[in-house]
Amino acid sequence: MPTRIRIWGIVEAARRGDRASRAFDILILTLIFLNVLAVIIDSVESIRMRWGAQFDAFETFSVIVFTLEYSLRIWACTVDPRFRKPITGRLRFMSHPMPIIDLLAILPFYLPFLGIDLRSLRVLRLFRIFRIAKIGRYYSSLTLIRHVIKSKKEELVLTTVLMGLLLVVSSSVLYYCEYPVQPQVFSSIPATMWWAVATLTTVGYGDMYPITPLGKTCASVIAILGIGMFALPTGIIGAGFVEAIDKRRNQTRVCPHCGKLVDADD
Amino acid sequence: MPTRIRIWGIVEAARRGDRASRAFDILILTLIFLNVLAVIIDSVESIRMRWGAQFDAFETFSVIVFTLEYSLRIWACTVDPRFRKPITGRLRFMSHPMPIIDLLAILPFYLPFLGIDLRSLRVLRLFRIFRIAKIGRYYSSLTLIRHVIKSKKEELVLTTVLMGLLLVVSSSVLYYCEYPVQPQVFSSIPATMWWAVATLTTVGYGDMYPITPLGKTCASVIAILGIGMFALPTGIIGAGFVEAIDKRRNQTRVCPHCGKLVDADD
Amino acid sequence: MPTRIRIWGIVEAARRGDRASRAFDILILTLIFLNVLAVIIDSVESIRMRWGAQFDAFETFSVIVFTLEYSLRIWACTVDPRFRKPITGRLRFMSHPMPIIDLLAILPFYLPFLGIDLRSLRVLRLFRIFRIAKIGRYYSSLTLIRHVIKSKKEELVLTTVLMGLLLVVSSSVLYYCEYPVQPQVFSSIPATMWWAVATLTTVGYGDMYPITPLGKTCASVIAILGIGMFALPTGIIGAGFVEAIDKRRNQTRVCPHCGKLVDADD
Amino acid sequence: MPTRIRIWGIVEAARRGDRASRAFDILILTLIFLNVLAVIIDSVESIRMRWGAQFDAFETFSVIVFTLEYSLRIWACTVDPRFRKPITGRLRFMSHPMPIIDLLAILPFYLPFLGIDLRSLRVLRLFRIFRIAKIGRYYSSLTLIRHVIKSKKEELVLTTVLMGLLLVVSSSVLYYCEYPVQPQVFSSIPATMWWAVATLTTVGYGDMYPITPLGKTCASVIAILGIGMFALPTGIIGAGFVEAIDKRRNQTRVCPHCGKLVDADD
Repeated sequence: MPTRIRIWGIVEAARRGDRASRAFDILILTLIFLNVLAVIIDSVESIRMRWGAQFDAFETFSVIVFTLEYSLRIWACTVDPRFRKPITGRLRFMSHPMPIIDLLAILPFYLPFLGIDLRSLRVLRLFRIFRIAKIGRYYSSLTLIRHVIKSKKEELVLTTVLMGLLLVVSSSVLYYCEYPVQPQVFSSIPATMWWAVATLTTVGYGDMYPITPLGKTCASVIAILGIGMFALPTGIIGAGFVEAIDKRRNQTRVCPHCGKLVDADD
Repeated sequence: MPTRIRIWGIVEAARRGDRASRAFDILILTLIFLNVLAVIIDSVESIRMRWGAQFDAFETFSVIVFTLEYSLRIWACTVDPRFRKPITGRLRFMSHPMPIIDLLAILPFYLPFLGIDLRSLRVLRLFRIFRIAKIGRYYSSLTLIRHVIKSKKEELVLTTVLMGLLLVVSSSVLYYCEYPVQPQVFSSIPATMWWAVATLTTVGYGDMYPITPLGKTCASVIAILGIGMFALPTGIIGAGFVEAIDKRRNQTRVCPHCGKLVDADD
Repeated sequence: MPTRIRIWGIVEAARRGDRASRAFDILILTLIFLNVLAVIIDSVESIRMRWGAQFDAFETFSVIVFTLEYSLRIWACTVDPRFRKPITGRLRFMSHPMPIIDLLAILPFYLPFLGIDLRSLRVLRLFRIFRIAKIGRYYSSLTLIRHVIKSKKEELVLTTVLMGLLLVVSSSVLYYCEYPVQPQVFSSIPATMWWAVATLTTVGYGDMYPITPLGKTCASVIAILGIGMFALPTGIIGAGFVEAIDKRRNQTRVCPHCGKLVDADD
Repeated sequence: MPTRIRIWGIVEAARRGDRASRAFDILILTLIFLNVLAVIIDSVESIRMRWGAQFDAFETFSVIVFTLEYSLRIWACTVDPRFRKPITGRLRFMSHPMPIIDLLAILPFYLPFLGIDLRSLRVLRLFRIFRIAKIGRYYSSLTLIRHVIKSKKEELVLTTVLMGLLLVVSSSVLYYCEYPVQPQVFSSIPATMWWAVATLTTVGYGDMYPITPLGKTCASVIAILGIGMFALPTGIIGAGFVEAIDKRRNQTRVCPHCGKLVDADD
């Protein structure tokens, strides 16, 4: 059992001072980083031609390491009181988001052996990138950013809903304006939504744009409203940061009546 | 009369605990949502070809429900003391923005029966989407966003006016720069306004752009000034959120030790 | 003399309660507004063809009114103690920005009579639009926006200087990257500046873009740095608004030691 | 030795009241400014044709002045206690960023004499522009901006890391969506990154864009997430400015009536 505790301590995020665990974390993160790099570079035809074998070898090596790590994690997770039961505990552990990502990142490699060969599943290899999220724990500012986004969650969701409404209305309006003149371009409302997204986010590729005076007038109003799509979330997040900083400072706030500390969350 | 009161309670926004009214709200909102979806999907040629009849049937069904709801609302509105008088009260109720939207959303369906058949009026079906505004009441953060925008209304209106001025000046300047060289593209000031909107909002479709050195220089200055079009409203709204949060906190700030109010300004 | 004082009171911005002056202001502003509208609409070829004579008549009428107003202003300005001297006082008044704009807006009309006929000077008619700045005085929120921009002037100027540096560096770098491959497009550093402005302001027309891998890599870094061009001024202006609001509130701030009011500007 | 101290005083940034040093600073800055201007204008083919000789002469003159200045700086730097030792002290001085920039800016001129003639090294002349950073010291608001960016460094670095992750994920996803249909355009993940940068920064050149429905849907989500790329840094920097201003004010806030410090947190 102590071996299992030690293994669990190593495969899980490193506690301060646990050198072996820290080294393991760095090793895995480096491997993830190299994997992401490999996926990116491997997509270049000319490189794939020349170094394909090497990339495949590295892929095999990586999957073996990741499989080993995944197995160790599953084997040792019973150390955690939440996953104590040998089977149901392990299954519960496996159904957490991080282990699922870990599994999805190694699964596509094994599928061909099971007779399933979907090259499109190779895209799942990219899931490894999300494991970088692990590094997050080492940064306190990520906590701040996450805290701010969390505390403003409702406002941000609402902004997204407003965006969605604006998107639907703008693409419908533009569709009715432009369809009669450019039936190939503004062919349907869903097709026009692509234009609406490009306009409201101010990306503006230029593959679709209105040509009728009415369409241009409506599009102008929509583009200007699109500014709100930047102003609202930016204002909300900015206020969230100010608030978070205020709160932190106020933790030393003293009541002027009794002289005691006013709790941060009053 | 009690029936009318009950009906009014149901067709109006649900009060806490009124299950029938809540269910009715959800039903209507679901129907609105499905209608918006139908309008969007129905615009795709290939889907329209195959499922046109079904979409028309659903449209008929929806209009019947909405007409029924509208009639009930008109019939029952006399319960509200503001619309107590049978005729003038009802007319006053009907002239409110929400009932007008409700009417506009069902009217196009009946016009052909009256001998008027303007297919372009079908666009009015989209008005139904605005009825989604009803959900707004369930979110307190919408109140916050609305409050912030309202409290900064004057500044935001002014920013819009400044934008308008900038728009007129930029399109006039660019017209005088580019018209002699690209008379087909920068054909008039109103036509150049389309360019100015695309530039000031940083959308930049690329269908119109200056080619003369002078035009490019002016356009550069205009594009940089366009940044202010993001900075001003964003700054105003951000400050509004900070202010709103400050106010809310200061109103209820009580020292947890002595129970006295920590003064808003201390 | 009392006539002159009365005239001066009328032609200058209206004081509260001075109805004649208010009416005069509204008349002039309406005329300015119609003039701007005329300049815009008049630029449309087809309208110019049909209504050219009417537009010219309106132009003549406007210039007569503006000339009259300008003359009255010059004649009456000696009422103001600053411009008391008949000649030097009037000249000093005429050298202020607003009267210069007024003059530039009417001058092009008279030049043909003096033998000078530069159609390009017609653009000066647009100067009339700046006279709309007059309305500004009626809005207190313009004062706030102006106050915020003024108080943050140094930071905003510096941001503009940083933008300028970034502009020069980016266009030089891209020129050296892309010139060998696209000598027609990235033909010189000044020509590349047009690209740099379009990229840093995120307008992105698409008339110029790098095609070499090195150029694309540099352009990516530049585009990401361009985000700072929005973040810095927005942050500065946002903080300025928060500060301005804080100051206003603090005007009622009480010192906790002696209980007296702490002055707003301490 | 006193000559050396005087020279050091002159070549280094001017202290208040040191007129000779101030004049020297202005001279060098003007020369830098003219050099940058020359590099820019010299890149225009037609100007290069006609004024090439003059530009070369100016270049030679500038390099002589900069070489002289650099030599004087190296010779006199031993005055500073940090670089007191004749050889190691000077080497340490030379390895500072500013002297390195100074060297890189003059080096390309001398390389041809050493038998090395890389025209591409001419780009190094642009390094002179960074010497403009010197002016920075005269502006207190640059200190504020630098302070804010520094105090928010960790958050901004993190935002950049998040951007990087988003960039990798978006370009991989779009590559897998679009490669089968547009193998020439979305040819590899690194090639797709160019699209991802243009979309996330909302530049949107329009040289690459998805055409498949799945690609467009993914691109829409990515473009909307791109708004966060503006909202996060803007919010962070905005909060930094608010905080910096708050701190400054609170440090010096004294009640004007009783003279006591109004505590920062009260």
